[in-house]
Amino acid sequence: MILFNNQFTERDKVNIDMEDRGYQFGDGVYEVVRVYNGVCFRMESHMARLKRSAAEIGMTLPYSLENIEQLLLKLVEKNAIHTGNVYIQISRGVAPRDHQIPANITPILLANTKEVERPIYKIKEGISCILTEDVRWLRCDIKSLNLLGSVMATQKANQLGYGEAILHRRNMVTEASSKNVFMIKDGTIKTHPANHLILDGITRVEVLDIAKEKNLPVVEEAFSTDELLQADEVFVTSTTAEITPVTKIDETIINKGQSGPITQMLQQAFEQRIPKHGDGSSVSLFFSIGQK
Amino acid sequence: MILFNNQFTERDKVNIDMEDRGYQFGDGVYEVVRVYNGVCFRMESHMARLKRSAAEIGMTLPYSLENIEQLLLKLVEKNAIHTGNVYIQISRGVAPRDHQIPANITPILLANTKEVERPIYKIKEGISCILTEDVRWLRCDIKSLNLLGSVMATQKANQLGYGEAILHRRNMVTEASSKNVFMIKDGTIKTHPANHLILDGITRVEVLDIAKEKNLPVVEEAFSTDELLQADEVFVTSTTAEITPVTKIDETIINKGQSGPITQMLQQAFEQRIPKHGDGSSVSLFFSIGQK
Repeated sequence: MILFNNQFTERDKVNIDMEDRGYQFGDGVYEVVRVYNGVCFRMESHMARLKRSAAEIGMTLPYSLENIEQLLLKLVEKNAIHTGNVYIQISRGVAPRDHQIPANITPILLANTKEVERPIYKIKEGISCILTEDVRWLRCDIKSLNLLGSVMATQKANQLGYGEAILHRRNMVTEASSKNVFMIKDGTIKTHPANHLILDGITRVEVLDIAKEKNLPVVEEAFSTDELLQADEVFVTSTTAEITPVTKIDETIINKGQSGPITQMLQQAFEQRIPKHGDGSSVSLFFSIGQK
Repeated sequence: MILFNNQFTERDKVNIDMEDRGYQFGDGVYEVVRVYNGVCFRMESHMARLKRSAAEIGMTLPYSLENIEQLLLKLVEKNAIHTGNVYIQISRGVAPRDHQIPANITPILLANTKEVERPIYKIKEGISCILTEDVRWLRCDIKSLNLLGSVMATQKANQLGYGEAILHRRNMVTEASSKNVFMIKDGTIKTHPANHLILDGITRVEVLDIAKEKNLPVVEEAFSTDELLQADEVFVTSTTAEITPVTKIDETIINKGQSGPITQMLQQAFEQRIPKHGDGSSVSLFFSIGQK
């Protein structure tokens, strides 16, 4: 089932108008919520960010935030999602093409789900990243549908046989194409401050919270690509990637190509925050992967 | 009629897929071609730019450029457009949502037309502009569907009661939200060079060509907002706005709030390049507006 505006419908019944401003301007915002064991993880944080993104582009949500949340929970239930993603986007709405936003336009809400396993292998073994220039706009704090810069960076990484692209502006690392970047040097965790140059990821916030809980030193400060390449450990975070070690950046091997001890400590703490259910079927990275 | 891929169809028969990457990533490119008296103006230049934009985002056009051009000409004919616009966009195609572009994806072509009069009043009387920060990405040379930055700048201008937004990066003027910007000081025409920070407008090229023809001094060089505010004349150009004088920027009145002599000279030369037809019905700014 698809959620189209406030209706649950079959996929082939969803008809996007050719003059939906989402289609012609990327004029809209979105969220991806992770479902673990049938539970939407950090739903409130996603809803709060959705509201903020909409407000920043001057768009009024078509329904109350509580209403949207309820509709999404219902969608997850209807689709019987166990471990997967909920994607929701809200576009400005339909109007004859014009940069100027017409008055009284009604936003279009679209949400779907898919069952997706946790990327356990990557979480354990890590991924490789290229370094590439961050050419995106200066409002990366808005989770908008203008994603071409991220798409192109991802494409470049893939074509070179790498898993992700770490972006930098004039050699200062911002984030990855769809993930936040953390580095660890001499026990201190560093990540770009949550300003207009990065999206303040829900998992980023989770990692900062875990670090605080564990009294690990954290500096929210931009760092250079040189610093990154000399890091003891590097990892990226996102709703779907969780905490994924980076073991290679361009030609540089990080931490002998392995996940580092602080990364693992954070992963374990994150693991413990993941909603569990009682039937014992959840895939646990540290406690049950050996038994798979 | 709408052109959907290579078929002419009614608007209500066009169904955009919810997983069209144009809708979820703004992953696509577009052009707006002006029709004067039934003739597509500078069609070849638009087609060349469409091809370039597609290539820059790593997208293969679904049909040959010649084929696309023929389809658009046919559309204009079918819709009997006299003076209007042809809008064409090509999105990457339909695929389950993923930043990574799948192999063998087929682009989706969409084109429509509308009858739109030349903006004669604005061309004569000019428009007002705000100055605002250019927050767009660093590949503005690509005419992509990622237009949220431009939409937001336009919206800001409109909310303040202005007609357009002139954008600047650290006080250096780039272009307007959907137009190129020119300033004239002591007889010299200045405009931002055609690099990655601006779209090289078809009308921009036309103006440069006219200036060359008339031996007017031109400098393609970035200028500051301070320089702009002290200009003798300022105008913006685009396919639909042609050469539109800017008579007010924020609180500063330019050229006593009037169109200046060099602007008018360029407008007259541009006017002469507009395709005419024989029935005398075309609206000519300088030669027939008084008779309307």
